[in-house]
Amino acid sequence: MTKTIDAYIDQHKDRFVEELKDLLRFASVSAQQSHDADTQACAQWVQGHLADLGLVSELVDQGGQPIVVARAKGTEQGCIVIYGHYDVQPEDPIDQWKTSPFEPVEKDGVIYARGATDDKGQFFAHVKAIEALIKTEGELPCDVVFLLEGEEESGGEALARFVRSEAGKALKPDVLVISDGDMFNEQIPAITYGLRGIITFEMTVKGPGFDLHSGGYGGAVANPAIILSHIIGQCVSQTGEILIPGFYDDVLPLTPWEVDNIRQLQFDDDILREEVQAPAIISDSKHSTLERLWARPTFEVNGIYGGYQGQHSKTIIPSAATAKISVRLVPGQTPDLVKDRIFDFLESLCPETVSLDLTYTGAGPPVVFDVNTPVMQLAKGALKHGFDHEPVFIRTGGSIPVVSTFFEVWGCPVVLMGLGLDSDGAHSPNEHFSLANFMKGTKASARFLSQGV
Amino acid sequence: MTKTIDAYIDQHKDRFVEELKDLLRFASVSAQQSHDADTQACAQWVQGHLADLGLVSELVDQGGQPIVVARAKGTEQGCIVIYGHYDVQPEDPIDQWKTSPFEPVEKDGVIYARGATDDKGQFFAHVKAIEALIKTEGELPCDVVFLLEGEEESGGEALARFVRSEAGKALKPDVLVISDGDMFNEQIPAITYGLRGIITFEMTVKGPGFDLHSGGYGGAVANPAIILSHIIGQCVSQTGEILIPGFYDDVLPLTPWEVDNIRQLQFDDDILREEVQAPAIISDSKHSTLERLWARPTFEVNGIYGGYQGQHSKTIIPSAATAKISVRLVPGQTPDLVKDRIFDFLESLCPETVSLDLTYTGAGPPVVFDVNTPVMQLAKGALKHGFDHEPVFIRTGGSIPVVSTFFEVWGCPVVLMGLGLDSDGAHSPNEHFSLANFMKGTKASARFLSQGV
Repeated sequence: MTKTIDAYIDQHKDRFVEELKDLLRFASVSAQQSHDADTQACAQWVQGHLADLGLVSELVDQGGQPIVVARAKGTEQGCIVIYGHYDVQPEDPIDQWKTSPFEPVEKDGVIYARGATDDKGQFFAHVKAIEALIKTEGELPCDVVFLLEGEEESGGEALARFVRSEAGKALKPDVLVISDGDMFNEQIPAITYGLRGIITFEMTVKGPGFDLHSGGYGGAVANPAIILSHIIGQCVSQTGEILIPGFYDDVLPLTPWEVDNIRQLQFDDDILREEVQAPAIISDSKHSTLERLWARPTFEVNGIYGGYQGQHSKTIIPSAATAKISVRLVPGQTPDLVKDRIFDFLESLCPETVSLDLTYTGAGPPVVFDVNTPVMQLAKGALKHGFDHEPVFIRTGGSIPVVSTFFEVWGCPVVLMGLGLDSDGAHSPNEHFSLANFMKGTKASARFLSQGV
Repeated sequence: MTKTIDAYIDQHKDRFVEELKDLLRFASVSAQQSHDADTQACAQWVQGHLADLGLVSELVDQGGQPIVVARAKGTEQGCIVIYGHYDVQPEDPIDQWKTSPFEPVEKDGVIYARGATDDKGQFFAHVKAIEALIKTEGELPCDVVFLLEGEEESGGEALARFVRSEAGKALKPDVLVISDGDMFNEQIPAITYGLRGIITFEMTVKGPGFDLHSGGYGGAVANPAIILSHIIGQCVSQTGEILIPGFYDDVLPLTPWEVDNIRQLQFDDDILREEVQAPAIISDSKHSTLERLWARPTFEVNGIYGGYQGQHSKTIIPSAATAKISVRLVPGQTPDLVKDRIFDFLESLCPETVSLDLTYTGAGPPVVFDVNTPVMQLAKGALKHGFDHEPVFIRTGGSIPVVSTFFEVWGCPVVLMGLGLDSDGAHSPNEHFSLANFMKGTKASARFLSQGV
């Protein structure tokens, strides 16, 4: 049976890739209103594609971007929900892209486009797996529901509202499958059993009512960009250690099994350094790199701006300066408590010469799943089949805020089978996705779905 | 004689204002190449206007923007050079302008436009003074040369090259007059006897080769925006105190006369605070506000940028972050020594996880002039005539880098008679200039020029 399915997938590879390219051409940047029409057109394309495969497919409006919900009935009991997101990150810095972000280019078995790995290429592997099952077997062992949102990259709440609605609760999946992450490396597939949480906010320091001549006023009027720098410097060290009082109090340490697992994974810092092209990576005698990436919180400035940014100089004291901040959370930490702790601290740092505007823009708690459940072992077997290599269990430093909502509402196991690579450039210029992994992932998904629940 | 001249100025006020508006319509933003054609058209207009008044007027090419040099012969010995600049600051932040920056608007006796006070309105007062003298007296007591540059706002070197050339040296003025600054307040005219110097540079912290996902890499890869914030915070305190070792070593204190002069000027901090619309101004028990503005160095961030600046959030570690810095210098300090001290310190602060790019973009030394020379007293009398109020001697926190070149090459007295107000918004949105001061300044200039040297 699996041989027939795999043969079907191999036979139709070229068409699958062309369809993926069609999907990647939509500039579905949910964070930017100017792309709302593209984002909605993308949702319609996905909905139509799933309908064409025979699923009962609809667009659900919960405010914000539409959610694609598509259901296929199975012959037996049980339900698998497959989550993904059809929205993508903004394309900037646009000048660093070697090809157009929304005109996919295939080169040496890799497809380049915004959203290729995050998350269009990954969820589309499951779409093609369903197609392969339907076309070869004619039936599915259990219900399969696609739940594809359009606000993952912009912190929207529409999907959470849907999951908490009567229709959402009624889905009652036995397992949730998500491919929106990474393999351990190019050869070794992985199941991600932990995600960091996140809060995001903006911080604006406001000084004078307008930009001032830095000669005429410098010395008497405080500079918001300097004060913003001080505030940032008091929150986080140059090596990323968070300096906010009590910040690490609730952080849970790794379990002995995790410490051992990390040791066995033999992560190579040099490979990471080369991959990111930085002069050096951060080293820390107390925590290994994987522990820092997976199980330690961070405080990152995602963007900073204020004053003159044009050619040459403009000698002003800027009237304001802003930082966009994301804070990654780990098990033991809760977004609201962390947010309050940070905001209280920030307000305590603001001198009387300026004012501080804080805007909380999004949150999701951290999650960790039990790796010893039967469904995790089934998923492990399916990945081994698709990738022809024993999978490993890993955590990730990224966040999928809605996962905690799924877990809270449905209480079912969540299987995160990432099909991408760290080096795929999710959120970066020249984002890409390996077509070999697209095919292997499709086969792994088909195997998993063919097993039922 | 002066009555006839003043009457001429009053009679032609409306035309003078219309001509000033024509001058203000040129978007002569020298810092932006996109405005090169506007800057050059402005130079041509000024050159033509002075030629129409009967001066021998030419555009001198020393590389960069053209210099307007226009000469009028006098009946007796001596030469007065009048310096000004026809280029202007960039208009951003454009959204904070209430009227179009390059379409002058007259309202309640004030003209609004970029360059109104800095410096088109101010040098044009001298142009109209020459016109009044020529039309009423038919002759000038001494040679008068206008030297109007187009790179004051962009740190260009063309004027300095001209002054150091044979043609420049040959001018040998007996006095140099500059109106590119401020009165003490709306009623009290002033002669500025000291300017701060300046150095400007850009500092870029470079980390990973491209923007990275802040989840996937946060904790292992240093964040350039955070490191830039730390570096800034180690250079300057929130109240503007410069923390660079040895920075204040060469700073000369005020003389007893200056301390007394500042006391008599009775500067009001509250008026400053209201003017700049800041929550509070910086207070310092050791130095008065005027001492801080005039005689203490500053380290200002004129602009800062890096990473994502769009709507919502984009959870990245930016690949780089940049700050544009200006440092004001005071007597005792020399730009090259200060620049070396700062750059050495900055390089010592850069951690191994990133690299630091420093670009030195401009410099000018501080200057202080003797207030007790005969020409200063003549200028004082002329201002008293034009403004009908006893003038005061002040310093300013601003910088006119070329002044030190004048002083070095010609060694002549420099008279800085500012016709603007601190509150005119030089370098800010909604820059403006009082037409009453335009007229008073024209009369003061005519009186000064009519006296010869």
